[in-house]
Amino acid sequence: MSGQFERVRQADDDRDRLVCRDCGYVAYENPKIVVGSVVALPDGLGGEAVLLCRRAIEPRRGFWTLPAGYMEMGETVEEGARREAWEEARARIRTEGVLAVYSVSRIGQVQVMFRARLDEPGFEAGPESLEVRAFAWDEIPWDDIAFPTVRWALHAWREGAGYPGPAVLNPPEDARGTRPLPGPALAGGAG
Amino acid sequence: MSGQFERVRQADDDRDRLVCRDCGYVAYENPKIVVGSVVALPDGLGGEAVLLCRRAIEPRRGFWTLPAGYMEMGETVEEGARREAWEEARARIRTEGVLAVYSVSRIGQVQVMFRARLDEPGFEAGPESLEVRAFAWDEIPWDDIAFPTVRWALHAWREGAGYPGPAVLNPPEDARGTRPLPGPALAGGAG
Repeated sequence: MSGQFERVRQADDDRDRLVCRDCGYVAYENPKIVVGSVVALPDGLGGEAVLLCRRAIEPRRGFWTLPAGYMEMGETVEEGARREAWEEARARIRTEGVLAVYSVSRIGQVQVMFRARLDEPGFEAGPESLEVRAFAWDEIPWDDIAFPTVRWALHAWREGAGYPGPAVLNPPEDARGTRPLPGPALAGGAG
Repeated sequence: MSGQFERVRQADDDRDRLVCRDCGYVAYENPKIVVGSVVALPDGLGGEAVLLCRRAIEPRRGFWTLPAGYMEMGETVEEGARREAWEEARARIRTEGVLAVYSVSRIGQVQVMFRARLDEPGFEAGPESLEVRAFAWDEIPWDDIAFPTVRWALHAWREGAGYPGPAVLNPPEDARGTRPLPGPALAGGAG
């Protein structure tokens, strides 16, 4: 944020907004939407594996995440999730309903996570990933997961009594999404 | 938006952004999140009624809507839905899961709608409502509903096989939320 912005309470508003000292532009700070998916595929042993991407970018470079990212203008939540799966994992997916809606209030983020499957065979690392792999449940590298919401979404997917099920919200012990994962410090910036 | 902003494609980006000619501030346009709820209460005849608010503000002043509005920074989706129910209908509610996640791509909006119930008796018009009423299903003023997503959410609530159920997305015939309701022209601005 530029240093030219200051926080000002405007008439008829109930909280301060960022206003440019030069031109008066009000930069409303709205929560941002992240769209992503737990992509299931056969593990080759009669069970299911999930796609994870090892991050090529900060924050949490080198840690594993789900294909997910900021929703753009002009797309639907499903289109955003499909775009992110392509950008990060070169995977063509079909979504199968909303798995979870997570709030990360500390950073003003709402994450809409889908259940999904590969719509075409194949996947590989996109530009923001070092590596993309399918993990059977018992192989998931829990100590190297990038963000708490990735862990939540994987468990929600696993615990769901099959699709369709109700969309979950934050786990009760972290209703506001404010607790970082144990282990290496979060570099901030994403869930 | 101020006239000082122009659309510029920046390095490492794949779409134009609004950049201030004076200070270089990039005003990212992100989809905004609306949070709201279908609040159920006894209709006095052994069935259920739902709370609707008659809008005191444009767009669609005088039309009926669900208690819903823009999510603010620092709150969770549930907290936002509860705040809006208080602001618009002076209702204290408890949410009971996600009913629907709607995309209105034309105006860059995602609506997270909850199933909810009154947590305390009583409701009345808040400052943005002319009137708040509980409607039994057969009394809902379908011709005077403010936005398509209100109609969708009411039908999703009615058709749901009871809570908990899977969260729905846009109806297939309007996957991008771009079709206005039949009848008086939409004044734009909200779903």
